[in-house]
Amino acid sequence: MDRIRIFVTGGTFDKQYNELTGKLAFNETHVPEMLRRGRCRLDVSIDTLMMIDSLDMTGADRAAIVQACQRCAERHIVITHGTDTMVDTARALAAGLPLDRTIVLTGAMIPFAFGSSDGLFNLGSALSFAQGLPHGVYIAMNGRCFQWDRVRKNVETGIFEAV
Amino acid sequence: MDRIRIFVTGGTFDKQYNELTGKLAFNETHVPEMLRRGRCRLDVSIDTLMMIDSLDMTGADRAAIVQACQRCAERHIVITHGTDTMVDTARALAAGLPLDRTIVLTGAMIPFAFGSSDGLFNLGSALSFAQGLPHGVYIAMNGRCFQWDRVRKNVETGIFEAV
Amino acid sequence: MDRIRIFVTGGTFDKQYNELTGKLAFNETHVPEMLRRGRCRLDVSIDTLMMIDSLDMTGADRAAIVQACQRCAERHIVITHGTDTMVDTARALAAGLPLDRTIVLTGAMIPFAFGSSDGLFNLGSALSFAQGLPHGVYIAMNGRCFQWDRVRKNVETGIFEAV
Amino acid sequence: MDRIRIFVTGGTFDKQYNELTGKLAFNETHVPEMLRRGRCRLDVSIDTLMMIDSLDMTGADRAAIVQACQRCAERHIVITHGTDTMVDTARALAAGLPLDRTIVLTGAMIPFAFGSSDGLFNLGSALSFAQGLPHGVYIAMNGRCFQWDRVRKNVETGIFEAV
Repeated sequence: MDRIRIFVTGGTFDKQYNELTGKLAFNETHVPEMLRRGRCRLDVSIDTLMMIDSLDMTGADRAAIVQACQRCAERHIVITHGTDTMVDTARALAAGLPLDRTIVLTGAMIPFAFGSSDGLFNLGSALSFAQGLPHGVYIAMNGRCFQWDRVRKNVETGIFEAV
Repeated sequence: MDRIRIFVTGGTFDKQYNELTGKLAFNETHVPEMLRRGRCRLDVSIDTLMMIDSLDMTGADRAAIVQACQRCAERHIVITHGTDTMVDTARALAAGLPLDRTIVLTGAMIPFAFGSSDGLFNLGSALSFAQGLPHGVYIAMNGRCFQWDRVRKNVETGIFEAV
Repeated sequence: MDRIRIFVTGGTFDKQYNELTGKLAFNETHVPEMLRRGRCRLDVSIDTLMMIDSLDMTGADRAAIVQACQRCAERHIVITHGTDTMVDTARALAAGLPLDRTIVLTGAMIPFAFGSSDGLFNLGSALSFAQGLPHGVYIAMNGRCFQWDRVRKNVETGIFEAV
Repeated sequence: MDRIRIFVTGGTFDKQYNELTGKLAFNETHVPEMLRRGRCRLDVSIDTLMMIDSLDMTGADRAAIVQACQRCAERHIVITHGTDTMVDTARALAAGLPLDRTIVLTGAMIPFAFGSSDGLFNLGSALSFAQGLPHGVYIAMNGRCFQWDRVRKNVETGIFEAV
């Protein structure tokens, strides 16, 4: 298996509790710890592009993500991303994507720093789909994998569903 | 996506701490709770075939697993299994497999009941590989997926590696 | 041992992650679950007076807490409370306290819903101090117990220290 | 508050899952990590006397514990101990105790390495009782504190109860 590139952009995945302010905040990404927890033996290279809530993501941020995916040497890419605008970033990637890349976006509904997070399940799922799927842009959430233009987040249930 | 059948056989995945005896033991499977934790939205049907340490698995137990895989209606199957003899069961399945099934075995090095388990990562991974791979028997561990006859467990490191 | 009354007022102890809004919020108190986790066999009775961040606590809220402590039948009382204004509520209690009550306030720097919370340690500590201390108003945090007028929260470190 | 001495002897508190053997085992004590989790600010000094299941504890082991309690400079002592023979060690301590020591034994029904452990609650409780109780030997479990000769472990429920 070729090396997989993981681009970290923040999102619920990486939210932490700041005990001095009592607020949720971003600090370092938890992705390396999650890979250790999963005893992952894939050849991966991790790059933190930004650490933001996806509701705060700008057009310039999305352009930076697209560019990172265009320029990296790896052809299998996983992006950790807030769920609220994950579909928007997937669309931007599909518009700018080189033909020879498999890109899978994933995220979490509960931060990994909480014991009850879905993040580890989703990361295992995204890394697996990224290895097998043909070129294209996908969203892996809730054990399922959707093509970028066939999915939406149901904001009332928090579930990603086919459209 | 078609329904996925999950066959539970026990293994480290499902070991619990019995607080009265102070020993590890099997009780109910944690797989449904793990699917809830992962907010899994796949159509799955779960069947507990046995709840045993895979070192205690007999030829009759393996025959029962093969038969369950032959008889079930679903063509995508995930089996949770102890890691020590996972490769042996995979071999038995390959020998007796109908031609139209994709079977993925997975497990864990740390019980799910422990906070630091790799089980959720592996379950997300196995369910994802089961959806995309061609017919055959596979082992999904450590983020990777191996054909049944190209893998062994390194007993000194606990890692599954290609042979 | 006589029955202990636990008054719940909210605070970090009970903050939860709301996965639909992505914000911290209050819902039900975790105190009963914490007592089960601790296998607590004390005779306790739990009353939720309010579920608020202690920075939002008003004079009327404090008066309600004082009144609840005056009126309850139990003479040993534990109050779960946000750390930011715990000392203020302790002062209000000391001013209005009947002479025959032992009241211990406690809280947490990390929500119980996070795996890494200090809440269980503090709850075990507060319930223990409440059993043995003479009448008065105390704050139990960080394994220590302070008289209400001899303590402050160091807002830079989050530690309660003697004054 | 004077310094508290913590003597570690093993017990369920400190059992870990050995992922290569699939068995429970002792390695390093978790007490320092537990004190960090509880943000404990007491002046404590930790000494590991042994790391064993209390069912394996011999008369010589108990004599070593008694001697350690006799010789240490601190007058407030907490001992972490397996629950099965905790009462036996308490009796040995009471027989050999200097008159000026407060000794509190505590333990856990579930290992700290499991997310659902009662250990943090019990440790917070034991450290609190150790600060306030008069000289003597006590067992702190389930939020309660018993004099050494007024308690037994109910082996069917795992609960410590008064006799």
